[in-house]
Amino acid sequence: MSEDRTPARSLGGRFTEATHPVLERINRSVDVDRRLWDQDIRGSQAHAAMLAHVGLIPEADKDAIVAGLDAVRAELADGTFVFLPSDEDIHMAVERRLGERIGAPAGRLHTGRSRNDQVMVDVTLWLRDNLPVLRSALVAWCAALLHQAEHGADVPMPSYTHLQPAQVSSVGQWLCAHAAEVSAHVRRLDDLLARLDACPLGSGASAGGYLPIDRRLTASLLGFARPTVNATATTGSRTDLLDVVGLLALLGTTLSRFGEEIVLFLSPSFGFLTLPDRLTTGSSLLPQKRNPDGAELLRGAGKLAAGDFAALASAVAGIPSGYSKDLQADKEVLFRAWDRTVDLVALATLHAEALGWKADRLAAACTPELASLWLADRLVLAGLPFREAHHLVGRAVREAVEAGTDLHGGLSRVLDAQPDAVSDPDELRTELRAMTPAALLGALVTEGGAGPASVRAQVATLRASLAPRA
Amino acid sequence: MSEDRTPARSLGGRFTEATHPVLERINRSVDVDRRLWDQDIRGSQAHAAMLAHVGLIPEADKDAIVAGLDAVRAELADGTFVFLPSDEDIHMAVERRLGERIGAPAGRLHTGRSRNDQVMVDVTLWLRDNLPVLRSALVAWCAALLHQAEHGADVPMPSYTHLQPAQVSSVGQWLCAHAAEVSAHVRRLDDLLARLDACPLGSGASAGGYLPIDRRLTASLLGFARPTVNATATTGSRTDLLDVVGLLALLGTTLSRFGEEIVLFLSPSFGFLTLPDRLTTGSSLLPQKRNPDGAELLRGAGKLAAGDFAALASAVAGIPSGYSKDLQADKEVLFRAWDRTVDLVALATLHAEALGWKADRLAAACTPELASLWLADRLVLAGLPFREAHHLVGRAVREAVEAGTDLHGGLSRVLDAQPDAVSDPDELRTELRAMTPAALLGALVTEGGAGPASVRAQVATLRASLAPRA
Amino acid sequence: MSEDRTPARSLGGRFTEATHPVLERINRSVDVDRRLWDQDIRGSQAHAAMLAHVGLIPEADKDAIVAGLDAVRAELADGTFVFLPSDEDIHMAVERRLGERIGAPAGRLHTGRSRNDQVMVDVTLWLRDNLPVLRSALVAWCAALLHQAEHGADVPMPSYTHLQPAQVSSVGQWLCAHAAEVSAHVRRLDDLLARLDACPLGSGASAGGYLPIDRRLTASLLGFARPTVNATATTGSRTDLLDVVGLLALLGTTLSRFGEEIVLFLSPSFGFLTLPDRLTTGSSLLPQKRNPDGAELLRGAGKLAAGDFAALASAVAGIPSGYSKDLQADKEVLFRAWDRTVDLVALATLHAEALGWKADRLAAACTPELASLWLADRLVLAGLPFREAHHLVGRAVREAVEAGTDLHGGLSRVLDAQPDAVSDPDELRTELRAMTPAALLGALVTEGGAGPASVRAQVATLRASLAPRA
Amino acid sequence: MSEDRTPARSLGGRFTEATHPVLERINRSVDVDRRLWDQDIRGSQAHAAMLAHVGLIPEADKDAIVAGLDAVRAELADGTFVFLPSDEDIHMAVERRLGERIGAPAGRLHTGRSRNDQVMVDVTLWLRDNLPVLRSALVAWCAALLHQAEHGADVPMPSYTHLQPAQVSSVGQWLCAHAAEVSAHVRRLDDLLARLDACPLGSGASAGGYLPIDRRLTASLLGFARPTVNATATTGSRTDLLDVVGLLALLGTTLSRFGEEIVLFLSPSFGFLTLPDRLTTGSSLLPQKRNPDGAELLRGAGKLAAGDFAALASAVAGIPSGYSKDLQADKEVLFRAWDRTVDLVALATLHAEALGWKADRLAAACTPELASLWLADRLVLAGLPFREAHHLVGRAVREAVEAGTDLHGGLSRVLDAQPDAVSDPDELRTELRAMTPAALLGALVTEGGAGPASVRAQVATLRASLAPRA
Repeated sequence: MSEDRTPARSLGGRFTEATHPVLERINRSVDVDRRLWDQDIRGSQAHAAMLAHVGLIPEADKDAIVAGLDAVRAELADGTFVFLPSDEDIHMAVERRLGERIGAPAGRLHTGRSRNDQVMVDVTLWLRDNLPVLRSALVAWCAALLHQAEHGADVPMPSYTHLQPAQVSSVGQWLCAHAAEVSAHVRRLDDLLARLDACPLGSGASAGGYLPIDRRLTASLLGFARPTVNATATTGSRTDLLDVVGLLALLGTTLSRFGEEIVLFLSPSFGFLTLPDRLTTGSSLLPQKRNPDGAELLRGAGKLAAGDFAALASAVAGIPSGYSKDLQADKEVLFRAWDRTVDLVALATLHAEALGWKADRLAAACTPELASLWLADRLVLAGLPFREAHHLVGRAVREAVEAGTDLHGGLSRVLDAQPDAVSDPDELRTELRAMTPAALLGALVTEGGAGPASVRAQVATLRASLAPRA
Repeated sequence: MSEDRTPARSLGGRFTEATHPVLERINRSVDVDRRLWDQDIRGSQAHAAMLAHVGLIPEADKDAIVAGLDAVRAELADGTFVFLPSDEDIHMAVERRLGERIGAPAGRLHTGRSRNDQVMVDVTLWLRDNLPVLRSALVAWCAALLHQAEHGADVPMPSYTHLQPAQVSSVGQWLCAHAAEVSAHVRRLDDLLARLDACPLGSGASAGGYLPIDRRLTASLLGFARPTVNATATTGSRTDLLDVVGLLALLGTTLSRFGEEIVLFLSPSFGFLTLPDRLTTGSSLLPQKRNPDGAELLRGAGKLAAGDFAALASAVAGIPSGYSKDLQADKEVLFRAWDRTVDLVALATLHAEALGWKADRLAAACTPELASLWLADRLVLAGLPFREAHHLVGRAVREAVEAGTDLHGGLSRVLDAQPDAVSDPDELRTELRAMTPAALLGALVTEGGAGPASVRAQVATLRASLAPRA
Repeated sequence: MSEDRTPARSLGGRFTEATHPVLERINRSVDVDRRLWDQDIRGSQAHAAMLAHVGLIPEADKDAIVAGLDAVRAELADGTFVFLPSDEDIHMAVERRLGERIGAPAGRLHTGRSRNDQVMVDVTLWLRDNLPVLRSALVAWCAALLHQAEHGADVPMPSYTHLQPAQVSSVGQWLCAHAAEVSAHVRRLDDLLARLDACPLGSGASAGGYLPIDRRLTASLLGFARPTVNATATTGSRTDLLDVVGLLALLGTTLSRFGEEIVLFLSPSFGFLTLPDRLTTGSSLLPQKRNPDGAELLRGAGKLAAGDFAALASAVAGIPSGYSKDLQADKEVLFRAWDRTVDLVALATLHAEALGWKADRLAAACTPELASLWLADRLVLAGLPFREAHHLVGRAVREAVEAGTDLHGGLSRVLDAQPDAVSDPDELRTELRAMTPAALLGALVTEGGAGPASVRAQVATLRASLAPRA
Repeated sequence: MSEDRTPARSLGGRFTEATHPVLERINRSVDVDRRLWDQDIRGSQAHAAMLAHVGLIPEADKDAIVAGLDAVRAELADGTFVFLPSDEDIHMAVERRLGERIGAPAGRLHTGRSRNDQVMVDVTLWLRDNLPVLRSALVAWCAALLHQAEHGADVPMPSYTHLQPAQVSSVGQWLCAHAAEVSAHVRRLDDLLARLDACPLGSGASAGGYLPIDRRLTASLLGFARPTVNATATTGSRTDLLDVVGLLALLGTTLSRFGEEIVLFLSPSFGFLTLPDRLTTGSSLLPQKRNPDGAELLRGAGKLAAGDFAALASAVAGIPSGYSKDLQADKEVLFRAWDRTVDLVALATLHAEALGWKADRLAAACTPELASLWLADRLVLAGLPFREAHHLVGRAVREAVEAGTDLHGGLSRVLDAQPDAVSDPDELRTELRAMTPAALLGALVTEGGAGPASVRAQVATLRASLAPRA
């Protein structure tokens, strides 16, 4: 894939033996980079147009090249393109085929560029084409979560810290938590995409060349804001690709955590969820079993991109700044992380759409002690300093545990023993008795909290956050 | 560090034994998080002001809290603050000390917040304080590279691909290549910092609370644009921290590659560089030796942050969405990656400032074959298709190698054998003879290439790119 | 830490400025490597003895050196040793102090060795000292698991695949599963320790030296089987250290999975476990809460060593074979992974000792469908091909689900509809009715399975596996 | 790939919709695990033999199964086996095809086993088959290095620390350094292979079963020493696979460092090496160029396995102990790391065989200062304490640098100024003058050092280390 490599063995004299088949096989990248064919052709067409514009190639040759590349594109699109064993990479395959179709003018196409900048414009165009596709997938996932969240805003569910129930929350709040993470990834993706605004083409092998090419024109024809700043960095760096893999790794942690909770909540001990048949695998031995293979794949495969990131970071670290063959690892790692992530986001969306919540099990898990925070806050509203309120509630819970009763009973014991702890003990007892899970949920007032109004506001905010960046 | 943990052993009844010392030691995070003290105090002061504003605590208590925290801050700033063994984390230490100083009003401070959102506001404020510091360090590194680049714009140097000399480039181009990478990191950092615009405080343990706090006011007092969207995600996610470590890992690859080339170019076989005594270590045995320990640390330690990223990504992947103790790994990993990176950027800057270039060695490395690209482009300008030009130059080089002569001789042989290959063979020979390294450098015209004008333009562009974002 | 570095600034002439403080700080490793003091002294004492034996230093100097090092060791052991700012690493600190104590003979100690081999003998000795300590910790963890397993061999508990209950297993089987993993780590550790049998000392800077030292004698004095084979590899490689970190990473996955299941089983929805107060943290607000911080740290911190491995692997990959300063990362990464792992193994042991099983909750989770495998195997024993047996049981379970009955009812329906499916339908019904969780457990006969006899045999086998290697 | 998954959709009633195609695609593993076909068939044949031996299936059925599997094996071996879309994994494909060939008896094969233990026996057998293949590849690489080392034992070459020349070493020493690393990997591999001595088959889904199978017999038939200890660990753990990937990651660092030095030494500034055409790629533009693509792939791709390790470690960490679908990542990661490593070891061997050393360039790089260590050691032999000898040589080198002369001149100046520094100044001067690179090399006497005798001894030792373990 390096700039000036040629089918060297055809050169005669200097080379006295063929490339060793082991090296040839490892060196060959066409199986990985063939998916860049459309970007490769668009880059070449823009390059040819620029060359003609500045007079480096005749208009007629440009026309032949553009038309010839259209024909090659058609072959690639309909699957009739035949790759030859000598096609080391997609760039050589396309140019070889162009030559077969249009003859001499094809020999002018590579004027003023090298393989090194060609590779980078292809990959950058590919990312500019595909990041929006990933964005749409994320938006679909987020939208599915938010659609469910609207319906789940009034459904009580414990929220957990340390996997211990902490307070009454809602299905909507839980879904919005995941949606908020996805929304943040969309924002990161938009930032990343906006940074991919410079066109590599025309950088040459590593320090530019001697022909009066117009890199601004090429950039403009391909939809970039500008050419890249420095030819050496352009051809020798893979930092932008690593940045993309980093985003996929971040995304992977979100996928993984979403999967984990689905697995947990589907386990009969929790029993909060059902999944439709299409998202589980069954067992003829234990037909009641619904194995959440998809959710487990979200959890497990979601973790892999961080290893991809470590692998690519290691491959590019500590090497000199010019192009080196080490960089060949870039696309293999990028594409495998990319394809896996796109699959997993689609799978996550299917899950988000299909989660069936069992309100009875959720309510049963909202045990009376989960009113503790309400009770403490209620005491604060009655004028107690928070630490005192906290302490008093703690005593009430302990009394309840020791007396084998519930929080209401525990509170009564505390108030009996300390009648002036609050000014309105009877009212307090009455209020507490009314704090069903639904009431506890309804009483939550914090912005961002699980109160139904808050969750509806979150849904609106998060939906708005998904709008394409102007 | 979890929300509702208390010095539980003081609660009496329920706990019948002390925390095991092994768990206590591992659980304790104050050695890592004590550096958050200023952020912790600012967060608490804003929180208190908000509580008073909405009437949840008396104005007088707020005043006592704010003044008391100012006093605690002074103790922390001047080193007189005494941490106790029971201070599990910085948050407990500050609140404990506040209580000692102001008594009862301290008990109202924790109203409407939990440890979980407090931790996140501290870390987010810390990042908002410190990312600009890292930015300045990057700007200084980049500026040092650009300062040298201006002076090196006319100094020929080979550019390498595959660590084989490819064409004549310049010291300025090489420096701008590294500067372009640093500039891109500044842009990433600015994007990242802009995303840290939401205030975690008020999220509570994981689903908000029952008190009419005003999260928008707190956010505004602390300089945030808004409160975070979802309390569960706020307290249970560390994606933003992972994002920061990802940036450090990207940066690390740039540091590592910068270090590698310094090590290479300082090796006597290259001999392109000198470093001043302050950046090398010597040897009494081999005093001629200048060991580039600093550059090796750039290369080696620059690689570590990718492992930190993998570690943190793994720690946060696959756990439920609420706060879990697993998240304690976050700050340890973040801070160690952060401190190392800040050190290495400073070290890189020292190197960028101090690189001494040996023009004679650089020129000697620009061997005659490096005119090949010029020759091919010159033939293209004379009308040959690129592939033919390429082929003709290839023949000339081979002839030269076989005949033991140089490129000029090789060209002559080709032209003698094929007199009509070009229309102006004599002029071509004359021109080639004039293509010294300096002339080759001067003839490069591509934007982003190593031509002196291009390098000066790059310097200007890259300098402009460092301006603070509006 | 490189071989021939000296307090160079004391050399006069050649160096005209001091090392830059930033470099000095980053370069300094004494805070990390001071823990090698005992190994450093033992290595030096053996080296001195060898030097005297071959006549390179006088006996009297050797005696002075050995005695002087004993005195330095005493200072280090009792904490009276004073490190100076100029003590870049432990090796220089010890030699500096030796010089202060014994004067001239100290100048002969460094004969025939360099810092590069000295570092490696110190680290290798440290590993040979400390791997047995880690081994003991693993044995203690495994022993605790096995002790509990013996008592849990008869306690039914579901076994899970996909976190869905699959069949009746036992507490003992679950504990032995973790014990088997720990035992395998002990075996790996023994293999690793056995490989650390070659002494680095005497390798010099990288290619040996000109003095007739006796590396076999040094090796023997320090308890090694032999000297290392190649001086360059000895001083420039860190593969053995990476191997150790790899073992810690493997161990970390076991710690992490052990922690995960404790967290799960402590969650009220499972409710299988209790932990004593000393291993949980409480909450004054929700005193019923038992936050399993320790188990979460096992799960979370157990994941970090894999990132350490990736970091160290990246740091040592792609650098030349001689010593480079990049290698300084080795001990920082090794020691932090080591200390964390040792802490976590101790924490895991505390958990293994303290797990309290709630037999009622475990039994309740063994629902009737978990007899399905027994039923299928029973049909096989009656002569049905497995796939038919499997199919028939599947039908029975489906009938049960559809009819809202249990497996017994489902089987009856199938047998009613297909009377000749088995030869002894009534006996089969009777047998199934008797298959309580305890009966199902008792009927398991496979070696390695959860049957009580198997679990007791596993305990014996695993205990035997922990015996020190001959 | 889970135990009890069936082509569930054929079951009728319970499942009302097909698996979603996205999940089906991600879930399907046959493209990855089809390479296990031979192991799968051997495992099944042994299992059938055992089942017949204990009377669980008729002898005739066993014979039909064994013969049928032989026929299926033949189809797979000659490529006539047709995989169907419904063949989710290799295990199902083989059993499906067996059923087509032999009918009813095929339904008895799965008696007493599950998919979970079947997968593990397949992978373990595959590793036992293939680790020896990797071993042979490593032995070939090591042997090639040692073959060259024998011839390079007398060829001087600088040894480097910090990529600064440190002393005179030899080509043989450099080759043995890499060989010593490879030899150590062989030892690690032997240890690892020895640990894979327990047979998973018969563990069932996770806790064994109810049939009197004989796991010892199966183990013995398949060449294992014993059955695995615990069924739950057997089916739910992937630690042994991670261990293998860890070995590949260690190996990768050695490959990477070998590649780095070839790239360096091939760069014209070093110019120590040539590579034959078959191991370089050329350039028609710069035919003198020999791009060391293969060596760069060793350096770059050698780094990737550490990321694979981190990925797999993360995937298996923090999940419950029973089989979960997360484990599906295991084989994808293992096989890609494996195939890459096997390719790279072959490539490294090709390089080791083909390295052409340029003795003139090597000798020229052995500059006079490289006699410094000899001089210091010579002074020690004359009775000076090492630190004094070190100091005196340091002064001599400084004098030489300052006076623009060489080490001999510098020494003369020191001896002139300090006539009694040594007892035999004239002899010393004469000796120093004689210390050519070859003489310096010949004078090295340390075991493991670069002296020719030492290198020849190393070659013998390392060759012996490659012998198959008894």
